[in-house]
Amino acid sequence: MRIYDIDKPDKIKNLSIQELEDLAQDIRTLMIHTVSGNGGHLGKNLSVVELTIACHSVFDMAKDKLIFDGGDACYTHKMLTGRSTRFSNLRKLDGLSDTQKRAESLYDVYEATLFSACSAALGFCISRDLLKEDYEVLAYFDRDSLKNGKTLEALYDIGMQQRNMILIYNEHESQTHTSFIDLTTIRSSDLYQNFKSNIRKMSSDTVKSTIRKVRDGIKDSMLDDPLFKGFNLDYMGPVNGHDIKAMIQALKACRNHTGPIVLHVITKNGYGYEPALNNHDYDSVDAFNENTGEKLLKISKNEATFHQIMDTALWDLKTMEPNLVKIETIPYAKTIFEKDYIYMPNAYRHAISTACGIALGNGIPFVSIPSKEINDSFHAICMEMARMKCPVIVGIQDCGLINQDKEHGIYDISVLSSIPNLVIAQPKNDKEVQHLLYSAIMMKKPVCIRMPYGLTHYMRLDQFERIEEGTWELFKVGDNPMAIIISYGLDVERIIQKAKENEYSIYVVNARFIKPLDFDMIDDIMEMNLPIYIYENDSTIGGLKTLINDYIHNEIAGIGIRDHFVKEGPIRSVRIDEGIHLEALFRKLENENTSR
Amino acid sequence: MRIYDIDKPDKIKNLSIQELEDLAQDIRTLMIHTVSGNGGHLGKNLSVVELTIACHSVFDMAKDKLIFDGGDACYTHKMLTGRSTRFSNLRKLDGLSDTQKRAESLYDVYEATLFSACSAALGFCISRDLLKEDYEVLAYFDRDSLKNGKTLEALYDIGMQQRNMILIYNEHESQTHTSFIDLTTIRSSDLYQNFKSNIRKMSSDTVKSTIRKVRDGIKDSMLDDPLFKGFNLDYMGPVNGHDIKAMIQALKACRNHTGPIVLHVITKNGYGYEPALNNHDYDSVDAFNENTGEKLLKISKNEATFHQIMDTALWDLKTMEPNLVKIETIPYAKTIFEKDYIYMPNAYRHAISTACGIALGNGIPFVSIPSKEINDSFHAICMEMARMKCPVIVGIQDCGLINQDKEHGIYDISVLSSIPNLVIAQPKNDKEVQHLLYSAIMMKKPVCIRMPYGLTHYMRLDQFERIEEGTWELFKVGDNPMAIIISYGLDVERIIQKAKENEYSIYVVNARFIKPLDFDMIDDIMEMNLPIYIYENDSTIGGLKTLINDYIHNEIAGIGIRDHFVKEGPIRSVRIDEGIHLEALFRKLENENTSR
Repeated sequence: MRIYDIDKPDKIKNLSIQELEDLAQDIRTLMIHTVSGNGGHLGKNLSVVELTIACHSVFDMAKDKLIFDGGDACYTHKMLTGRSTRFSNLRKLDGLSDTQKRAESLYDVYEATLFSACSAALGFCISRDLLKEDYEVLAYFDRDSLKNGKTLEALYDIGMQQRNMILIYNEHESQTHTSFIDLTTIRSSDLYQNFKSNIRKMSSDTVKSTIRKVRDGIKDSMLDDPLFKGFNLDYMGPVNGHDIKAMIQALKACRNHTGPIVLHVITKNGYGYEPALNNHDYDSVDAFNENTGEKLLKISKNEATFHQIMDTALWDLKTMEPNLVKIETIPYAKTIFEKDYIYMPNAYRHAISTACGIALGNGIPFVSIPSKEINDSFHAICMEMARMKCPVIVGIQDCGLINQDKEHGIYDISVLSSIPNLVIAQPKNDKEVQHLLYSAIMMKKPVCIRMPYGLTHYMRLDQFERIEEGTWELFKVGDNPMAIIISYGLDVERIIQKAKENEYSIYVVNARFIKPLDFDMIDDIMEMNLPIYIYENDSTIGGLKTLINDYIHNEIAGIGIRDHFVKEGPIRSVRIDEGIHLEALFRKLENENTSR
Repeated sequence: MRIYDIDKPDKIKNLSIQELEDLAQDIRTLMIHTVSGNGGHLGKNLSVVELTIACHSVFDMAKDKLIFDGGDACYTHKMLTGRSTRFSNLRKLDGLSDTQKRAESLYDVYEATLFSACSAALGFCISRDLLKEDYEVLAYFDRDSLKNGKTLEALYDIGMQQRNMILIYNEHESQTHTSFIDLTTIRSSDLYQNFKSNIRKMSSDTVKSTIRKVRDGIKDSMLDDPLFKGFNLDYMGPVNGHDIKAMIQALKACRNHTGPIVLHVITKNGYGYEPALNNHDYDSVDAFNENTGEKLLKISKNEATFHQIMDTALWDLKTMEPNLVKIETIPYAKTIFEKDYIYMPNAYRHAISTACGIALGNGIPFVSIPSKEINDSFHAICMEMARMKCPVIVGIQDCGLINQDKEHGIYDISVLSSIPNLVIAQPKNDKEVQHLLYSAIMMKKPVCIRMPYGLTHYMRLDQFERIEEGTWELFKVGDNPMAIIISYGLDVERIIQKAKENEYSIYVVNARFIKPLDFDMIDDIMEMNLPIYIYENDSTIGGLKTLINDYIHNEIAGIGIRDHFVKEGPIRSVRIDEGIHLEALFRKLENENTSR
């Protein structure tokens, strides 16, 4: 059986283990071939081929629900659900998505972002039980998801609610050292399957405790995980995720289990493709040579991502500021920051509060967080970092549009700009990010530096310059500018270059601070009486244009909460303190009336 | 010794247990007296009097750091650190804050919001270890904090980093059933204190496992908690938090322990004041009669909070829509919603994704989340609820300025308004919230309804009307309006009433949808050529005025990401799809130039 012959998942129901293993090989070949051309999430997708085949073999996914956390493990699921012939369009505009997508297939019941699969699965269970429907719900997640609080919140609640569901927890072999359970023993005893429902029927505490002892005896043959136990979740595993037969046995056992159960699966990242095996370079990868694994896009020595430039600059600055501490929240991020480097994968909210503690304890913390996850940290950035004026520097990574991702880094300006006391900066190039980093340390204030997505020219500086907060740059191209273009990030130099090439004469403004704006420069350019264009690579709602409009247009009088932190106190006193009360409003009205 | 005599915490160092117990009584008297007049967080503060005395008795808080999670447990700490004579100003404008506040005292090292104490404490440990300083770090948190993912992220990371710190975990007696440990045995053995460092020095696995068995034998006299064990945290407890002697012993044992340790304390909520004992009505309370506990503010039958009105309307609507499910994230929120009610205290992010799962499983979910915590849910509301167009209704509670709280509900408009597909509504009164709730169910779209903080007039409706999305109301007061006031929420009717009283003639607009705006009405009122005032009880940055300004001012051309979800794909294709590329910009410039 070849993967192209599988137009529906039930085609694999009656295949032998050997046939399923052959199918796995065929899936892997198509996967590696496609990703070598289109790029994609290879490492984890290779690790779950057998696991996914086993799921579709045991369950009826036309009614049962399988939700993959995030977007790096559903290629096999896509192929088994009638999308193998379209797989060559993976990641193209309007092609197959990297992740589950409801519009693509009835088998994609949910479009999970990272850390949401367990919560969404619980939601399906609640509706199933409410509507008295009959289907199984499976959520797939991995070890990195477990370090984000949302997954932990979900596990806590799932343990409380005790609804029937299966949580497939994938751990990579390198992350753990353990032996696999002997599933045949457990299955044949049948005791494990029933102990839970038996316990429920008993009332006496003594009987319960006896049964628990029996259960624990059996469970001794498995490695129990105290974390899942702490969340009141039954546990089975670990199972070898590349052993289709064992996976089928385990999934069948889970299906018969009452209440939620965690099935712990151990797999190898990149399994079946030597260059990707345990090599996180292939987790998210651009085009490569299928035979050798060699990357097709060569990065020259003069090029780097802003993340890399920032990291090197930070390390250079540590010789000057030995109390610099770097917190990295991006999983498997590479760093040259060797000392006082703290790795907090996916813990975006925890990272900010920890950084505030470091700052108030007289360390100098830098936290790296991706734009698409920064909103998670809003509360901590606002109510702790900005409110207490903690000198924490947040490097917001991958801002703006992102290559081949359903989540773009386009909302952080809108979300963060309402926070008082906060400085928000964004560099136009490699030099400016190095100067801004240095300047942020000098400012001793809460600062966010937004770094654009993508590669850029790079030269390591040995001298840093202080950039004053709230200062923009004005470039004049040609002799007789006919317009003003305000932009930021990598677009600034691109616009200048394009204007020169086309012999356009324009002013180009580098709006390198989103907060505070350069009010003097805005006043100056408004006086030029030239058409103004704002060119931004982010959401326009609450973005740069919005903020400039808000400053220059005051013909509508606004009464509301100003850009500062509001006191606490009896609400009437607070309203008077803020000037948000009817007397203030009607006084304005009267003045207006008199002046007419 | 009276509490007024304690101007510094070291004054209690040499007191006998009996004297400390007398002091506890004195603290409690002052606390009850002050809160009965000023209002405050009584329940939990009463539960930690002895616990806090013990902390100050064992540790030197001039150098050691004690961080309380959230703001409901630091009154005793304030009194012991020289603020008892100012305690009568609690919660007044510019008076003593409800929470720890750096500007108030050197003993307040951090201003923790809910769920941030453990993370912040870890930050202090990191700086202490980096700067080679010598102090103890203690974080206090309770069971409700444990249900929020941020605390869980922190515990995970603290278990990984293994720095010296003490996590005081307070659980209320009603939440658990357990017997207290005999601390004298443990202390005298001294084995417990040392097992950890011993284990660290050993290398052979066999030796380790032997020692672990010895340790586990001792620990059998304590009730081990698998959750903390799962996070790789040592554990001691439970200890009776009202037994000062036991608390002192336990804290001393923790001080000698190497690595992080959780001290599990059991207390009674409201301990020492009969009306408040195990009664969550006194957790956060307005003025009351000190002798009887009777609340001074009588709420009439015709008054209710928007939370209560919404809850009743939801229950009424369930007869029409039996698949309605209510998720409540506010701890101890009272509800009359009796069936299909799901309690998820503090799990704001998990709640939204679960609701999306419920919606896609054909239930009708309503989620209640406080405004000040909604930002936590941004990612799930944006990338799941709005992106998949899940018909989920979010009731945002306590919007706008809040009575006596350092956190106001003033940022949710700024944060949420950039999310595509989302409807954001806000009622002006009790009737409108009931109609909006019904309308939201009818819309079958992602909808947020913002409910103002505070009490309002209330009449339960038996007939609901459909309000069309994006429609505002225009009220004319008097015959010859001289201005237009745009507002929303409870202020709308207040403005109308005040204008009538003062015989002002104005137009008043009820901007009951923040998204979409009523563009037709904005066009109409702009044509009236009257002065316009926008009166909002929220942050002006990204608020209603900003959004209106953005619509009416288009003399600045903006190129950026429109109010919709961006496709995934190669970045060049995405940019062309969005019209954010230099060709588009320069085409605009050329047209402008030609038309001149």
